[in-house]
Amino acid sequence: DCLTSSTPQIPSFCLLVSPFSHSPAASYTDSSDDETSPRDKQQKNSKGSSDFCVKNIKQAEFGRREIEIAEQEMPALMALRKRAQGEKPLAGAKIVGCTHITAQTAVLMETLGALGAQCRWAACNIYSTLNEVAAALAESGFPVFAWKGESEDDFWWCIDRCVNVEGWQPNMILDDGGDLTHWIYKKYPNMFKKIKGIVEESVTGVHRLYQLSKAGKLCVPAMNVNDSVTKQKFDNLYCCRESILDGLKRTTDMMFGGKQVVVCGYGEVGKGCCAALKAMGSIVYVTEIDPICALQACMDGFRLVKLNEVIRQVDIVITCTGNKNVVTREHLDRMKNSCIVCNMGHSNTEIDVASLRTPELTWERVRSQVDHVIWPDGKRIVLLAEGRLLNLSCSTVPTFVLSITATTQALALIELYNAPEGRYKQDVYLLPKKMDEYVASLHLPTFDAHLTELTDEQAKYLGLNKNGPFKPNYYRCWF
Amino acid sequence: DCLTSSTPQIPSFCLLVSPFSHSPAASYTDSSDDETSPRDKQQKNSKGSSDFCVKNIKQAEFGRREIEIAEQEMPALMALRKRAQGEKPLAGAKIVGCTHITAQTAVLMETLGALGAQCRWAACNIYSTLNEVAAALAESGFPVFAWKGESEDDFWWCIDRCVNVEGWQPNMILDDGGDLTHWIYKKYPNMFKKIKGIVEESVTGVHRLYQLSKAGKLCVPAMNVNDSVTKQKFDNLYCCRESILDGLKRTTDMMFGGKQVVVCGYGEVGKGCCAALKAMGSIVYVTEIDPICALQACMDGFRLVKLNEVIRQVDIVITCTGNKNVVTREHLDRMKNSCIVCNMGHSNTEIDVASLRTPELTWERVRSQVDHVIWPDGKRIVLLAEGRLLNLSCSTVPTFVLSITATTQALALIELYNAPEGRYKQDVYLLPKKMDEYVASLHLPTFDAHLTELTDEQAKYLGLNKNGPFKPNYYRCWF
Amino acid sequence: DCLTSSTPQIPSFCLLVSPFSHSPAASYTDSSDDETSPRDKQQKNSKGSSDFCVKNIKQAEFGRREIEIAEQEMPALMALRKRAQGEKPLAGAKIVGCTHITAQTAVLMETLGALGAQCRWAACNIYSTLNEVAAALAESGFPVFAWKGESEDDFWWCIDRCVNVEGWQPNMILDDGGDLTHWIYKKYPNMFKKIKGIVEESVTGVHRLYQLSKAGKLCVPAMNVNDSVTKQKFDNLYCCRESILDGLKRTTDMMFGGKQVVVCGYGEVGKGCCAALKAMGSIVYVTEIDPICALQACMDGFRLVKLNEVIRQVDIVITCTGNKNVVTREHLDRMKNSCIVCNMGHSNTEIDVASLRTPELTWERVRSQVDHVIWPDGKRIVLLAEGRLLNLSCSTVPTFVLSITATTQALALIELYNAPEGRYKQDVYLLPKKMDEYVASLHLPTFDAHLTELTDEQAKYLGLNKNGPFKPNYYRCWF
Amino acid sequence: DCLTSSTPQIPSFCLLVSPFSHSPAASYTDSSDDETSPRDKQQKNSKGSSDFCVKNIKQAEFGRREIEIAEQEMPALMALRKRAQGEKPLAGAKIVGCTHITAQTAVLMETLGALGAQCRWAACNIYSTLNEVAAALAESGFPVFAWKGESEDDFWWCIDRCVNVEGWQPNMILDDGGDLTHWIYKKYPNMFKKIKGIVEESVTGVHRLYQLSKAGKLCVPAMNVNDSVTKQKFDNLYCCRESILDGLKRTTDMMFGGKQVVVCGYGEVGKGCCAALKAMGSIVYVTEIDPICALQACMDGFRLVKLNEVIRQVDIVITCTGNKNVVTREHLDRMKNSCIVCNMGHSNTEIDVASLRTPELTWERVRSQVDHVIWPDGKRIVLLAEGRLLNLSCSTVPTFVLSITATTQALALIELYNAPEGRYKQDVYLLPKKMDEYVASLHLPTFDAHLTELTDEQAKYLGLNKNGPFKPNYYRCWF
Repeated sequence: DCLTSSTPQIPSFCLLVSPFSHSPAASYTDSSDDETSPRDKQQKNSKGSSDFCVKNIKQAEFGRREIEIAEQEMPALMALRKRAQGEKPLAGAKIVGCTHITAQTAVLMETLGALGAQCRWAACNIYSTLNEVAAALAESGFPVFAWKGESEDDFWWCIDRCVNVEGWQPNMILDDGGDLTHWIYKKYPNMFKKIKGIVEESVTGVHRLYQLSKAGKLCVPAMNVNDSVTKQKFDNLYCCRESILDGLKRTTDMMFGGKQVVVCGYGEVGKGCCAALKAMGSIVYVTEIDPICALQACMDGFRLVKLNEVIRQVDIVITCTGNKNVVTREHLDRMKNSCIVCNMGHSNTEIDVASLRTPELTWERVRSQVDHVIWPDGKRIVLLAEGRLLNLSCSTVPTFVLSITATTQALALIELYNAPEGRYKQDVYLLPKKMDEYVASLHLPTFDAHLTELTDEQAKYLGLNKNGPFKPNYYRCWF
Repeated sequence: DCLTSSTPQIPSFCLLVSPFSHSPAASYTDSSDDETSPRDKQQKNSKGSSDFCVKNIKQAEFGRREIEIAEQEMPALMALRKRAQGEKPLAGAKIVGCTHITAQTAVLMETLGALGAQCRWAACNIYSTLNEVAAALAESGFPVFAWKGESEDDFWWCIDRCVNVEGWQPNMILDDGGDLTHWIYKKYPNMFKKIKGIVEESVTGVHRLYQLSKAGKLCVPAMNVNDSVTKQKFDNLYCCRESILDGLKRTTDMMFGGKQVVVCGYGEVGKGCCAALKAMGSIVYVTEIDPICALQACMDGFRLVKLNEVIRQVDIVITCTGNKNVVTREHLDRMKNSCIVCNMGHSNTEIDVASLRTPELTWERVRSQVDHVIWPDGKRIVLLAEGRLLNLSCSTVPTFVLSITATTQALALIELYNAPEGRYKQDVYLLPKKMDEYVASLHLPTFDAHLTELTDEQAKYLGLNKNGPFKPNYYRCWF
Repeated sequence: DCLTSSTPQIPSFCLLVSPFSHSPAASYTDSSDDETSPRDKQQKNSKGSSDFCVKNIKQAEFGRREIEIAEQEMPALMALRKRAQGEKPLAGAKIVGCTHITAQTAVLMETLGALGAQCRWAACNIYSTLNEVAAALAESGFPVFAWKGESEDDFWWCIDRCVNVEGWQPNMILDDGGDLTHWIYKKYPNMFKKIKGIVEESVTGVHRLYQLSKAGKLCVPAMNVNDSVTKQKFDNLYCCRESILDGLKRTTDMMFGGKQVVVCGYGEVGKGCCAALKAMGSIVYVTEIDPICALQACMDGFRLVKLNEVIRQVDIVITCTGNKNVVTREHLDRMKNSCIVCNMGHSNTEIDVASLRTPELTWERVRSQVDHVIWPDGKRIVLLAEGRLLNLSCSTVPTFVLSITATTQALALIELYNAPEGRYKQDVYLLPKKMDEYVASLHLPTFDAHLTELTDEQAKYLGLNKNGPFKPNYYRCWF
Repeated sequence: DCLTSSTPQIPSFCLLVSPFSHSPAASYTDSSDDETSPRDKQQKNSKGSSDFCVKNIKQAEFGRREIEIAEQEMPALMALRKRAQGEKPLAGAKIVGCTHITAQTAVLMETLGALGAQCRWAACNIYSTLNEVAAALAESGFPVFAWKGESEDDFWWCIDRCVNVEGWQPNMILDDGGDLTHWIYKKYPNMFKKIKGIVEESVTGVHRLYQLSKAGKLCVPAMNVNDSVTKQKFDNLYCCRESILDGLKRTTDMMFGGKQVVVCGYGEVGKGCCAALKAMGSIVYVTEIDPICALQACMDGFRLVKLNEVIRQVDIVITCTGNKNVVTREHLDRMKNSCIVCNMGHSNTEIDVASLRTPELTWERVRSQVDHVIWPDGKRIVLLAEGRLLNLSCSTVPTFVLSITATTQALALIELYNAPEGRYKQDVYLLPKKMDEYVASLHLPTFDAHLTELTDEQAKYLGLNKNGPFKPNYYRCWF
């Protein structure tokens, strides 16, 4: 039985996540001296409700302004709200969510509300909550349990407060990282009887769901929204094309023109990095293990090399392989003075940073996220974000990218909630092609882009429905 | 029983194929006045063999030089030959082939020979044979039956001469268009008992194979090499990125800078066209029906429009949709004077050329492949290649692209011929990922490109074999 | 006295000029067997005039169509014609011209006529005349003396027929190469008393004018239109950006993606070549002698090398330095097999082609303009156009570029003809900035480009006239 | 007599200069509560000298580290130091300087010292001094008089302390803005008798020098280093190509892909902005008043429009014209919600910001340098840096660009100091071409760039000296 649970042994995945991810404007969050734990405070919103726990309900107004600004860059969700004025596709939905609490998330939550859902929400990361936004949500009547700087105990307490409510039981889960799902599995497995589905965004959370599924323990349908085509392209190619430049500039103020750069890995992230740097006048080398990607790098005008061949001459080393120890201590030893080293890949294992923590090397923190590692002969390597993801640590994720993600989440919730009996079984699903296309179409007005419609004759000729899907479900790339 | 055949009703697919496809240097082919049919000639090569039928065996020397030049741009096949000096992976193979007969095909055939195979060959198109190359092959001992300007009867006679031989029976088929396969099905179905597999390159031929498979009539494994990732990218994105410029220049001598262009369709072909024209300083608009491709066009910096919005202002209209009637008479009526219209897509139905054959419009042929269609008010539209494929009609296919295709064919033959019992059933298969990667890797030395090898530790971390495949089989795009 | 002439010793500069320059469509010119010299023929046009000498007046209709097509791409001249309907700025002008006789020249001549001028014309090159166009001009009443394949004696005879006329004396000269000017200097020096000025287009002709001026022998004002900013940019940067690709494709059908290329010289021509090849996915290296241009190459993303450093690895070598022996025999000896060598620069001395004419090397002509030079070990170098200008020999000059030149010539004629006494002395002048700007502005409508006008307040703030010039006269570059 | 001075009426140009210019790292400067004026402090460096006036001599160590980091990105100055080990081209020079006091300036000053000069220095801006750097210079023995937050009285006091010294009289002036020069003119005109020349960097200062020269009041040679070719290209094209992206990202976190942008002005700055945004996937429109620049925009692939045509649809408006009121209130009224408006041009008059300070509009400061201007209907315009220079206010100037400037200054000082009698008169000069080329050549090693040397034969053919100059002096652009 998929609901049989063993001893609840709660992992602390949340602690592994970069504290900076998805919190672009974290800096303005108050650094007040108020040391009282929110759990110990008595707060009410202006309507008298106290079904929430945030840092300071009085910050609601500032948070509301941030939400309003975010709304302007999330046109797809706003369009969904408009369409919902007639129909309420989430009427009756009781969604429990666990994500980063940011202005963008707030736009998502208020959209879900407009579509008819009731929501309760916790943070998926102990550092990333914007207190003002949480306050604004609480003020608007959303039961939010989150603040910046939760302890691990706080973290689980907040999650528990979302699900363990008198007279309210969730029927949908929106998760980012799998901790909420995990908690319900361990603590309230019977809740799954009423749950129609799980929507999960993160690589980690999706991985856990596939493991559950493999083990026959997944007891509701789950939607993997991480791997939708639209989201993937924006999270990787488009986002990184801009954030590689942004991350390097903010940390080093370097000039790109004429610089020699080696990019390790020519997947979507690598392609974005290479294209951006080439356009800025850098000379870019690429390393690859897959001959197909390698050939593509060649055709795109990049010299394909082994790292050793260029390591002595390059000014910048960027990893985006998803692999480990791509840049080793030996490479680091051979780099020239002032070489910049950073990681745009999935993990912080790509650069063997641990190998630099040896007595003969001196570390000097010269700016936030920038370390000089100094060799005995005076050579300095400029290490960014200690080898963690540069674009999350030293840049920001544009609201538009977050809008793609949030819209995908909203549509996945609608799909799972409204799917006829039997369409989805106790398995992990990708967003149907048609929904993926719908996410894209909702973002076209931002660019004042006008889609062409097939004529009846053309649709027949191509064997397609005029409203899509235009590509088969297994179609995972764009052409 | 898959071998049960009905009345042999031979279609003439060959006549539908563009006579110019894959015959870049057709122009030098002799235009001698020798009107005698090759079938009526008595010819022998220098070794005394007369098991061939070509236009003129004396042209062998000129053809040999063409083959030698082609060899220099087909390094992958030459590398295969070298590796074959020890092992002969096609020893015992008896291959009957039906493809365009060009210098590049000759390099393929001689490579198959070097790998141990015996070959007999006919042309898949009545116009495309390079007589000199056919002569050179015949001189080297290949039984080739092909010449430029075959009649339909000649066409089938040549194919028959390849398969209907005393004391020799093919065990492999290499086909381009499906006519050879069709002939054997109809005439010699029993031959399939000894045939280990079919390798098919063309869209049309693959389509016929899938239909056979669906109908349960496919009686040997077939390899669809048209859809291998490497081949697709080169046939579409990379090839078209260059041939759109080449085709437009050769036909019109126009300048690209500052020109306004609309590209209909943003698939691989459209992407190649857009990128090239943008790089040359054109202002490019895109039309799309699929919101995902549309969004990608936006992010790549192209205005997404409906054709009607820009039809009055553009200097060039390019179709690459795979659809029909994308450019209608109404559009053509609204274009401005001197507008150039051409097609880079899969069919010649994208532009409604038929609608231009009306009495009030005057056609004027101003150059080979260039027509001015003149409206009563004097407006001229410049129609290229009568709406057929521009890159096949007015440009050339680079040898390097043909090398990708030929290598893919060779590896597919090796794979099918050597596959252990049971690996392939009576179905249509895509080239295994690992072979696809191998095709790519054989072309890397052309670019002096150096692939990185995984360490044992890294391979383990990624869960990959160090020699690939590096991506799963279903993985149809590059990232 | 500037009119004192020594013995007329007529040089044959015309024979040095590339026979292919500016004659893109030469190929269609009739190759009829009519061997009668035009000088021996009796021809009349339909109005009864026989004041011309062309190959065959009956070809006029075909030539007229070519002229009409050219008119569509020369909007600036057509605009000048329109404006001339009220005023006739060249009323009374008697222009003798000596240029290539092409459809574009015809549009220029007929424009000069529409502006009020009388014209007589000869060819500046013995090969480049398009006979049909010459016929069409003669049919329209222009006294044209030119045909394809003149002898040297014919050449000077034609020029003489233009100037040595009973009752007609030129008051303006339009020259391309200086031969017409030279002839008048030598034969009819007194003619200069009535001549208001010379407009000269070519580098050679301009050089001769400066020499005359230096020697105090220039007796009328001369306008150097070769060095106008607009013309320079189009002749070099914009034209070469496209023609390098076109020239390489038409001769070799090569693929650009992934190829390694070295471009010698990073002036305007080099910049055009580098930008185009980079955009097509080539890896481009640059050599330079000037550190300022070198630094710019770096900032544009090109590795700056000495030729020796990359000569063994590159697939293509392109010269555009204006220098001599940039590619030496030593370099050629070290190139790899199949390396392509060509010249886009000003002279045919950049590649030391002479050094390849040694007994141990075999030359093989494989196509028009393409030679394989074969080393004893079998290595082949692909030499294009025997080291002459690739873009003139193997590509075409777009009509739009010729339109820039022709408009510049027309405006220079108008300026010199109408200049008040004393504005121009017996010296060589550049086109005034304002006229240069006017040439540009006449070409903007082609691109549907809309110029912004200064308000009175802004003009005052900037200290500019609202109608230009917007930059000082000495300003020779664009920003 | 050029030394006759009228009543000293000291202008306060310094107050007009952007307080943020050239002070990228200003943020780390201490914000200690030490309110004592440096003029009232008694400080000594470790060698016992008190001939300086800085905020806090104890900050020297931190400043030294900043200087050391800057040294790594100023290789040209470091190369000059090395060459100076034998010769001391500034031996005997007594330089008084007035510039921004930053780490880069410190590298320049210490280089001048290494070349043999004695220096005394003040700040040219009351806000831009980095106190730590000033301290480090003072500690090293440089008489520096500067701190962040000087009053106007302090400003002139500091300058006076540099020149009004017992037993020391300057013989060279290095100025940035002309205030130092002005002070000496007004207060110590006789000092000019010993002064060999002035080197001036800024537009303002150069303008004042030309006015002096015109009025016949310039009494020593002056070198205008602002207009050297190398410096111009880096200050404008190369710097702006990167800083437009950086400035927009840091202030708005926006995504560039698919955004519609209008760039007003297509000079060097406009070209840099357009190229960068196009490369990031924006759709860029251009406005221009000069038809030559306009035509270039067309050929580079940008639609040339009037601002009115696109103002309703664009997402970003960028000015770089050098003109005033390019963006008017009327334009601002018509922009769409969330439109971003910023200025990259020379002045802060390009956007009519004053017109936005009306009662019906609400200003909301949302971040440093970012204002939302809100219309009564709720429309928000995002105004950056209140219309001042975006790249100085919201981005940083890379050290490499400053290195170009500083090297140009050093070479101009060497040239003027060592010029033989009579080479320079009492006039304003541009840096000789050869020195300009030398600045460039000193920066090539940064890119591991290898310059080609002319052979004797080639130099003779081209009529050039092998060591340059390679272009004539009047040659102001690169090709």
